[in-house]
Amino acid sequence: MTEAGAGQGAEQGPTAGSWVDVAERVGVDLHLELPGSGSRRGALADALRDAVRSGRLSPGTRLPPYRALAADLGVARNTVADAYAELVAEGWLTARQGSGTRVAERALPLGGTGTGRVPEEAPVRDPGPAHDLRQGAPDASAFPRSAWAAAYRRALSAAPAAAFGPGDPRGRIELRTALTEYLARSRGVRTDPGRIVVCSGFAHALRLLHGEKVLRGPFAVEEYGLAFHRDLLRGAGVRTVPLTVDEHGARVAELGALGSGVRGVLLTPAHQFPTGGPLHPERRAAVVDWARGRGGLVVEDDYDGEFRYDRKPVGAVQGLDPEHVVYVGSVSKSLSPALRLGWMVLPGRLVRDVVAAKGEREGWASALDQLALAEFLSSGAYDRHVRRMRQRYRARRDLLVGALAERAPWAEVGGVAAGLHAVVRLPSGREREVLLAARARGIAVEGLAAFRHPEATVGTGGGSGSREPGGDGLVVGYAAAAERAYGAAVEALCEVLARVG
Amino acid sequence: MTEAGAGQGAEQGPTAGSWVDVAERVGVDLHLELPGSGSRRGALADALRDAVRSGRLSPGTRLPPYRALAADLGVARNTVADAYAELVAEGWLTARQGSGTRVAERALPLGGTGTGRVPEEAPVRDPGPAHDLRQGAPDASAFPRSAWAAAYRRALSAAPAAAFGPGDPRGRIELRTALTEYLARSRGVRTDPGRIVVCSGFAHALRLLHGEKVLRGPFAVEEYGLAFHRDLLRGAGVRTVPLTVDEHGARVAELGALGSGVRGVLLTPAHQFPTGGPLHPERRAAVVDWARGRGGLVVEDDYDGEFRYDRKPVGAVQGLDPEHVVYVGSVSKSLSPALRLGWMVLPGRLVRDVVAAKGEREGWASALDQLALAEFLSSGAYDRHVRRMRQRYRARRDLLVGALAERAPWAEVGGVAAGLHAVVRLPSGREREVLLAARARGIAVEGLAAFRHPEATVGTGGGSGSREPGGDGLVVGYAAAAERAYGAAVEALCEVLARVG
Repeated sequence: MTEAGAGQGAEQGPTAGSWVDVAERVGVDLHLELPGSGSRRGALADALRDAVRSGRLSPGTRLPPYRALAADLGVARNTVADAYAELVAEGWLTARQGSGTRVAERALPLGGTGTGRVPEEAPVRDPGPAHDLRQGAPDASAFPRSAWAAAYRRALSAAPAAAFGPGDPRGRIELRTALTEYLARSRGVRTDPGRIVVCSGFAHALRLLHGEKVLRGPFAVEEYGLAFHRDLLRGAGVRTVPLTVDEHGARVAELGALGSGVRGVLLTPAHQFPTGGPLHPERRAAVVDWARGRGGLVVEDDYDGEFRYDRKPVGAVQGLDPEHVVYVGSVSKSLSPALRLGWMVLPGRLVRDVVAAKGEREGWASALDQLALAEFLSSGAYDRHVRRMRQRYRARRDLLVGALAERAPWAEVGGVAAGLHAVVRLPSGREREVLLAARARGIAVEGLAAFRHPEATVGTGGGSGSREPGGDGLVVGYAAAAERAYGAAVEALCEVLARVG
Repeated sequence: MTEAGAGQGAEQGPTAGSWVDVAERVGVDLHLELPGSGSRRGALADALRDAVRSGRLSPGTRLPPYRALAADLGVARNTVADAYAELVAEGWLTARQGSGTRVAERALPLGGTGTGRVPEEAPVRDPGPAHDLRQGAPDASAFPRSAWAAAYRRALSAAPAAAFGPGDPRGRIELRTALTEYLARSRGVRTDPGRIVVCSGFAHALRLLHGEKVLRGPFAVEEYGLAFHRDLLRGAGVRTVPLTVDEHGARVAELGALGSGVRGVLLTPAHQFPTGGPLHPERRAAVVDWARGRGGLVVEDDYDGEFRYDRKPVGAVQGLDPEHVVYVGSVSKSLSPALRLGWMVLPGRLVRDVVAAKGEREGWASALDQLALAEFLSSGAYDRHVRRMRQRYRARRDLLVGALAERAPWAEVGGVAAGLHAVVRLPSGREREVLLAARARGIAVEGLAAFRHPEATVGTGGGSGSREPGGDGLVVGYAAAAERAYGAAVEALCEVLARVG
């Protein structure tokens, strides 16, 4: 222990006039600075005043008792009492019988410290239009708070201690095991827990595959999809090539003409996003054949596979060939996007690379939420919630379809057999005008153009009689609105559309 | 609604002989495939048999009641009953009074489906050495399960519905507000909620700053640090330049000689990692002056700032100049690395770029855990937990220091005024031999060399009498072991070190 006079000495022996840091350990942590010499009372008062003025002690914060702070600072109790009294007299602190000494509520706001400008609000999702008919989010008001919190508590109480330490970068084994069972019975996915990697959602999965170069080269995508995903790929230096989409999903036969550079394709087979068709059985087989022949890979975005309203669930393409399909799902539509919890079901050969891309020590998704989801799945609470929401969304879909049939009978409504949104086709060339009218009526809704690949070769079709998706239309999300607000939103939309026909 | 005959038609009218998908919606979701023609009973039995054989229905899974499945498939109840009976007879299913029909426990394991090889285990943290003296993780067995689950439940119950929808990419306002107050009083950080961005931890913060090019150019780092961080930067194309470290932390005066290309520096000012010195007050002022003069940035990794055992807490450098320091903290040491929850306190001018790097829709950290942490902080539960752990770790440190003083009196022990690890200096040239002996004794511990920058110009000093960090040593983590296992780990380490002197 010779270093006590070396490294330690540097910490313990401040030079005269330098600052000594002191702290209070009794009630709350409080970081104060006192000079090494001079009046202890005056110095303590100055330090407290500065802490309040600068906002480091915020209004309402309770200060430690005299005795505790005095013991910790190594000063007399009266020194602390006097310093407190001085600041009470100045109005910085308030002292009230029974509630101790607190920072006065009138203390200056943090913004007044002059440490720099307050930034403008960062870009966030538009906070609450009058009528929310945006796609992409479930009914936030329907989150099963009690059932989820109960599952969370049960999972935490049952978890081994190691669950609170650094974890397997693939994610908790409890969740990967529960997902293996759940995805097999509900989506026809064939895998085992060793091939599942938990992630934050679909965008994270894309980053892991492309941003980290697990997959290389240009990538085929559907000509309709989320611009957000295309932007993410472009940011990672990945060129995307559009495939035509019709009512049977993507025309995967076009893959053959794209050349050998394209070795991957991103599809939404259960419910093409956003146009709504399920990938035709022949095309499901064909895309797997293409991947086998080319040594390629299908990335299957099963974003809303649990929400099908007719009696014909469309199983995952992954089940046809687990070695050539990366299946990606999440709780973002079924439970909440706030959980940031998703999963990749990988071909065995990709597991190591994806884990490496994720980062050795980087779990990304909260292991405790993972344990809670495992418990939520195993206990049947997840099935119950999905069933309840399926009924709710089906009723909303029926309301929308029925209202449009009556009020805008010219409108074709597509993609309604599944999911959380419908596509309302518009007469050619009218999309922008209708969007502006909707916005003026307080409706948040998106147009088809926003989802179209910039290189898509879609004509101006889509008018009545044509079966070709593309052209003009609205993507109407019927899930995001709260239950009590949905009817008025549909009514508002009908008012706008009634003037179009 | 003319599309009912178009897009819808493609879903409803399978050609003869193709496969029709059917599902059960009553109990659990069950994906079965029946041929469009032929014996319904035989087809159902085949489909069920295949689902069990392939592992899509796992052992113990309860099948839906006859009536429910029959209604959903549109077949007679007896058809289902007969199909079930057939599979019970074959041993695929079991039927027991009161517990319904279930998949038999002897059903084939998933691994037998022959869909590809099971991958080897991905690289994970070594799962449980006999004696865990690794740095970097808190005592996982001390996670405050009840208090955390209670805070989680309270937070969920109090949250607005919008909390379960897509959120602000900076993170929940409740957490950013609570952090503003907490970091001000405990760490001397000056900020406001608008300048805090929630992230998954320090590595995520580095990715956001460097991988996404918010910061460009080479970056100065301390010559000792986590190889993991250096690797992450190298992977993002960022060259790191080492600064010499002594008992007063990094020699920041060396920044001036690095040329104008280096505009950023990564520091661990509260407790240099892993050598243990706090950054000297003069150096704190100097690095801020450098950043101001150069238009540069200090990235402050406050990885264990809450754990100081003497009465001299070292406040954050950020408090000296919030516009030139990015302060990064997390709950990984104070609560658990399993939560994947950290925060960046940013200069106002960087907020927009960091949010853009994070990704518009990508929260990364669970918003529900964020709400729980806000509640945990505001209720005082966080302070109570940190206080409790500080006492526990201080006692462990004392045990380690005392045992080494007795059993290996030649050993210098450094960095013990704070944190969750100590550095035990070894005679020059002995590190590798000691590590091997420790490993043979079942001790997981790391050597100083593992933390040294490849370009560091550290001599072979560090022997007795020298105050220069560097040279040979062990980094002994005293937090990761469970309470009951810690004493034996220290004893084992002493046995190894007693043979060195």
